[in-house]
Amino acid sequence: MTGGPVIDGRRLLARLDAFAAIGATPAGGVNRPALGPEDRAARALLAGLGAARGFSPFQDAAANLFLRRAGADDGRPPLLIGSHLDSQPTGGRFDGALGTLAALEVLETLEDHGVVTAGPVELVAWTNEEGSRFAPGAFGSQVYAAGAFPRGWQDTLDNDGARLPDELAATLAALPQAAERPLGRPVAGYFELHIEQGPLLEREGALIGVVEGIQGTRWLEVVIEGQVAHAGTTPLADRRDAMAVAAAVIARLQATVMPADVDARLTVGRLTLAPGAVNVIPGEVTFSIDLRHPSGAEIDRLEAEIVALAGEVAADGGCRASVRRSMDVAPARFDARLVGIVEGAAKRRGFPSRRLFSGAFHDALFMARLGPAAMIFVPCRGGLSHNEAEYVEPHQAIAGAQVLCDATLEAMAGLAAT
Amino acid sequence: MTGGPVIDGRRLLARLDAFAAIGATPAGGVNRPALGPEDRAARALLAGLGAARGFSPFQDAAANLFLRRAGADDGRPPLLIGSHLDSQPTGGRFDGALGTLAALEVLETLEDHGVVTAGPVELVAWTNEEGSRFAPGAFGSQVYAAGAFPRGWQDTLDNDGARLPDELAATLAALPQAAERPLGRPVAGYFELHIEQGPLLEREGALIGVVEGIQGTRWLEVVIEGQVAHAGTTPLADRRDAMAVAAAVIARLQATVMPADVDARLTVGRLTLAPGAVNVIPGEVTFSIDLRHPSGAEIDRLEAEIVALAGEVAADGGCRASVRRSMDVAPARFDARLVGIVEGAAKRRGFPSRRLFSGAFHDALFMARLGPAAMIFVPCRGGLSHNEAEYVEPHQAIAGAQVLCDATLEAMAGLAAT
Repeated sequence: MTGGPVIDGRRLLARLDAFAAIGATPAGGVNRPALGPEDRAARALLAGLGAARGFSPFQDAAANLFLRRAGADDGRPPLLIGSHLDSQPTGGRFDGALGTLAALEVLETLEDHGVVTAGPVELVAWTNEEGSRFAPGAFGSQVYAAGAFPRGWQDTLDNDGARLPDELAATLAALPQAAERPLGRPVAGYFELHIEQGPLLEREGALIGVVEGIQGTRWLEVVIEGQVAHAGTTPLADRRDAMAVAAAVIARLQATVMPADVDARLTVGRLTLAPGAVNVIPGEVTFSIDLRHPSGAEIDRLEAEIVALAGEVAADGGCRASVRRSMDVAPARFDARLVGIVEGAAKRRGFPSRRLFSGAFHDALFMARLGPAAMIFVPCRGGLSHNEAEYVEPHQAIAGAQVLCDATLEAMAGLAAT
Repeated sequence: MTGGPVIDGRRLLARLDAFAAIGATPAGGVNRPALGPEDRAARALLAGLGAARGFSPFQDAAANLFLRRAGADDGRPPLLIGSHLDSQPTGGRFDGALGTLAALEVLETLEDHGVVTAGPVELVAWTNEEGSRFAPGAFGSQVYAAGAFPRGWQDTLDNDGARLPDELAATLAALPQAAERPLGRPVAGYFELHIEQGPLLEREGALIGVVEGIQGTRWLEVVIEGQVAHAGTTPLADRRDAMAVAAAVIARLQATVMPADVDARLTVGRLTLAPGAVNVIPGEVTFSIDLRHPSGAEIDRLEAEIVALAGEVAADGGCRASVRRSMDVAPARFDARLVGIVEGAAKRRGFPSRRLFSGAFHDALFMARLGPAAMIFVPCRGGLSHNEAEYVEPHQAIAGAQVLCDATLEAMAGLAAT
């Protein structure tokens, strides 16, 4: 594979610019909410660019958009490569777009070089990965991998009252040239290139992140119940201060969980207390814990530790604690063969790489449930993402797309051999 | 003084019932917001009861209401006794009303027994002690003691947009029989009977609290500035987590300040964080500290400790801390002679008593700036106050009023002797 086709970096960068213009914000970012007019414009542009090279467009019921390049044996399940085109409200130019347009670049490079792959290769642009307009995110890939819509999805509204089913139908209708296809069709494999959205690659001077999997995420809601009392007249022995207990629990967790395990992530991102007056001891505090780890067993262990700690600290403070799960996404381990292919491809191109786990969700998390999957990360400046200042150096974007291209060809070769 | 006149306990209890009916809530509490219709009705009833016994009513510009019983030398400054008639929205029957109606009971007892005091004794019902309709509280006594209104007071609105000056004028106009008198007139002294609003007396079986002073209160607003980042992708070393820092600061303060000093009170009653998403590391946390101590120097020392601790913990966590004062009320030490009179009166009646500091504000805090002042506490069940379930046993209410009566007479005697 050392002599595999070289992608057209200049074309890739031009495409990134063209798509960044759709929903461009004055600060240099992108506002392209899922299924809105800008998202539809981006999908139309992508379909048009594909059609110009003879790649057939398809859509499924979740408005996931596919561009297909046929293989020698076109009856085989396709190898999927891609990402998403929607953005956060004040998002960046690369989150999702880089992986989608790199996939287009791979298809075009194969076309440029007249490469005949053993089976079909398809670009996919998943619907509503961000989840910022319609919750939850990774909607398209979840629905695709599950082969069905989740219960109650029809009632999903955006902040302006628009209904998800209506916006989905309008988005599908806006691309009549794309033939309909069923959800959950088998795939030979899935590769996704994405920005790291974290600081590790940049700090270590790595150009390619070889993603071994995606951390599991469990959201806990902790409620501490104490007793409202007067801040001035209530001596320590009589206090059942829910905020004092909450602070002690959070401080203990912050001092122990992450320092003890470099792979663990624990974040308290929300906290509310009642009644919320300066001179009143809080009777109730509710806070969230976002807990992540590559190992599901470790997440279970940490949750048990949190439940025990909260109960113990609450009892010491005359309060009661309860902990409930509000979300739970199991970790994904990517396919060892595909991960090895990514690592080998980076190595052969001379790109410094390191293995890592993704701390963020991606569509690959759900695609890994359907078939072999892997991801390629490239650095982003300062680890910054979901931010208009999000930035990837041109040579980093090009390197990522090259690894995607090489990995696609090697995976196809391997798939042909099986 | 052992043989001083005995108050009419049954009359006092009947008066407490009559006033509890004005603004009575279904749950047995009282809703009598300052300067509202119920407050005016209570003032009118009080003035009427006074007029029936020949006590002349007066009002000052802050609508503080006085009922005067003349003394032998009526040119002397009066001894003031009283409290307030307004309540919290879901307040109790005793907070304020007990002290006000006990003062009326004292005047009537003196009248019943034909006691001639050396100087005049006046009941006072201070305006807007609670501050729950118009902030700040203890408005009437503050204005009276200062002799002037605070800057900007005219712009004070309640939640429905009613203006404090309008409500004050209407309240004054509703009691045309009360002659106007200036703010800040000299007083010979001030006694206030009040419920403890804390658990100490009940727990120790004391009937009378001999209040030595009122804790100073300082409100601090602590802001921790960190950096917003992704909960999943940001490793510990890169986190500048404002919530983790805030929790550590609060936990350290709770673990040290009150355990080290039985007189200190530290409460975090408000906390807000931004942006407030489960999966986002908070970039900013703001929380309040309500700090109380009988010693102003100790409050200064604790504030310095808080500033140093917040700065140190914030620096360790890659954040910045700032601390500003949002309110500061110096402690009050009551007059040693008047405190001794209260203690002696309780002892002579055989009422178990203990000395204590008040953790709550009272009008006496401001009156202590104008002249000698002291307070008498009686227990309230479970220390509960600002609550419709607030409760004082009949014998406790009567004992408090009796001590107020005895102390009034002894203070007048002492004043006569000087």
